[in-house]
Amino acid sequence: MTDTTTPRPGPVPYKRIATEEGWAATGQLDRYRRLVEQGKLDDPAFNAMWRFYLAGTSDRTRHIERCLGDTDDLRLQHMDAAGIDIAVLSLTSPGVQVFGRDEAVAMARDANDELAAAVGRRPDRYAGLVAVAPQDPAEAAKEMQRGVRELGMRGVIINSHTHGEYLSDPKFWAIFEAAEALDVPIYLHPNCPPKAMAMPFLEAGLDGAVFGFGVETGLHALRMMTSGVFDRFPKLQLILGHMGEALPFWLYRLDYMHRATVRSGRYPQLKPLQRGIPEVMRNNVLITNSGVVDPLGIKFSQAQLGVDRVLYAMDYPYQYEIGEVLALDAMDMPAADKKAFFEDNARRVFRLG
Amino acid sequence: MTDTTTPRPGPVPYKRIATEEGWAATGQLDRYRRLVEQGKLDDPAFNAMWRFYLAGTSDRTRHIERCLGDTDDLRLQHMDAAGIDIAVLSLTSPGVQVFGRDEAVAMARDANDELAAAVGRRPDRYAGLVAVAPQDPAEAAKEMQRGVRELGMRGVIINSHTHGEYLSDPKFWAIFEAAEALDVPIYLHPNCPPKAMAMPFLEAGLDGAVFGFGVETGLHALRMMTSGVFDRFPKLQLILGHMGEALPFWLYRLDYMHRATVRSGRYPQLKPLQRGIPEVMRNNVLITNSGVVDPLGIKFSQAQLGVDRVLYAMDYPYQYEIGEVLALDAMDMPAADKKAFFEDNARRVFRLG
Repeated sequence: MTDTTTPRPGPVPYKRIATEEGWAATGQLDRYRRLVEQGKLDDPAFNAMWRFYLAGTSDRTRHIERCLGDTDDLRLQHMDAAGIDIAVLSLTSPGVQVFGRDEAVAMARDANDELAAAVGRRPDRYAGLVAVAPQDPAEAAKEMQRGVRELGMRGVIINSHTHGEYLSDPKFWAIFEAAEALDVPIYLHPNCPPKAMAMPFLEAGLDGAVFGFGVETGLHALRMMTSGVFDRFPKLQLILGHMGEALPFWLYRLDYMHRATVRSGRYPQLKPLQRGIPEVMRNNVLITNSGVVDPLGIKFSQAQLGVDRVLYAMDYPYQYEIGEVLALDAMDMPAADKKAFFEDNARRVFRLG
Repeated sequence: MTDTTTPRPGPVPYKRIATEEGWAATGQLDRYRRLVEQGKLDDPAFNAMWRFYLAGTSDRTRHIERCLGDTDDLRLQHMDAAGIDIAVLSLTSPGVQVFGRDEAVAMARDANDELAAAVGRRPDRYAGLVAVAPQDPAEAAKEMQRGVRELGMRGVIINSHTHGEYLSDPKFWAIFEAAEALDVPIYLHPNCPPKAMAMPFLEAGLDGAVFGFGVETGLHALRMMTSGVFDRFPKLQLILGHMGEALPFWLYRLDYMHRATVRSGRYPQLKPLQRGIPEVMRNNVLITNSGVVDPLGIKFSQAQLGVDRVLYAMDYPYQYEIGEVLALDAMDMPAADKKAFFEDNARRVFRLG
């Protein structure tokens, strides 16, 4: 966490648009508290994480809980101090995805109204993504329409798996149909690894943002690619945070072994793709650097996917570090590429004008 | 798989030393077959993979089964055709690690004798790694001594988890003590993800080399780092294949979130490290490019870890592609760095003279 001695970012020839910025709706954390206390959710990593966060026993957890709920005061002060011009806000993970269907549908609607109001108060500083309940794909598609057309939202936030289910299952594809029709991107944000894979991570303290989040979300994106989502929805745009959850680095192996596995005929569910993993990664996937302030990794990803596919994100309030903004301002990178990273790509992808 | 029209690699100013080359001991695959047929091993990804491989229904599986067992004829022809001067051989995954303790201990000993004999017939072309049974750490340490001192082995091969257990557990640390005392590296090779995490991968056909192998092995290496193995054994050298299982790309986030998590006090098992993840990665971890023929990724990793920490591997017979050798020969890279990659690092790490 930033302390008060950190120098402030100076003027730069681009706006800084941060694109994976967490926000909690009124009552959201209380609902998580009830869920944890009732002990009915069969999701050991969620239960362990939120039991800890909601106890607020460390500076880090208190900072996060304090910042998540605010959009009018502290957040703007923090943005000003860090030189963030615009924040693209999304309902913090796991959003509504840990609840039953009816509660999740209602909660998403309320959260979207609340976020639209916050953005409406400061349209110069905020844009918002629509939260949806994948538990009811048809309702999710309707809420996306309402969010984009009536509330002015700029994309959709989905926090990886929903009760251990993945969007590779065609029962969810009404969501992709709506995203394609509305021409808005889906940000696939991490969630805690589901019970079916959590324990080897959780027992070592590696289930969270340090590693488990990333591999679970990377798996989710790969499941989407290999199930043919992007053949069926060729215009769909998927955003992955955390340097693309390392998929750009894995690209050669993913492509080689996916093709070898398809050829071998081992899995009936792995059918040949019209457009393989590299083509999808370079045409349908955008990534942000949330949590990863590594100029080498950013430049590697620009080379791998294209300069127009790598966007800036801070991951506020989970990683509020002014020094990281300074480090990214100082990247040795052509001015146009740096402006694409901080500003132009976000304006294009989220239609910020 | 390479076909006969691929041009052969020409002369280059370095020897090509391939460092993650698989070999099967006499009877090993028959033992796997019995294990699968008996249905007693509670390891769904292993059972599914070997049921498929041993049926030999695709060109790929027939090629692999044919090549794995050979060290005197076909393998040397393939090495000649691909321009591989020296292959560092290791018992193919999961080695002896799926068996009960006594069977595994005996099987490792026999396999090491057999591999030493094969290397002895062609010491100009082969070096070998010691297979061990982590099921019995004290016996594993003894076998490492015998393998290195009596059989002339150059390191140790361990195929990630053993019955779902990880080397982060101090009960295994006699193995690290022996490796440090003998001054030989441990190659942590992938295994199938264990039952406690396999299903979200397996049901999508992503449990194998395409993705599941890599994240499970990366998790294993991280568990070693965060459990303090390298504080306790500061000279230990760990080799990771497949471009370091992407850990070099994750390095900033691993470091940031590991430190944040330790500070938060969330997990009693995550204690502060004397030497953090970046320091360990740059002093105790070596990586090979097995399966990843991506000059950008190789150069990224050299910059991240050091030119002396990135080694060449082919991953024979699983990825026998002469075109990949040609692509790596053609990398735009300073001559000394390319020689370090193909030859010098392997000579130093495996003491090949």
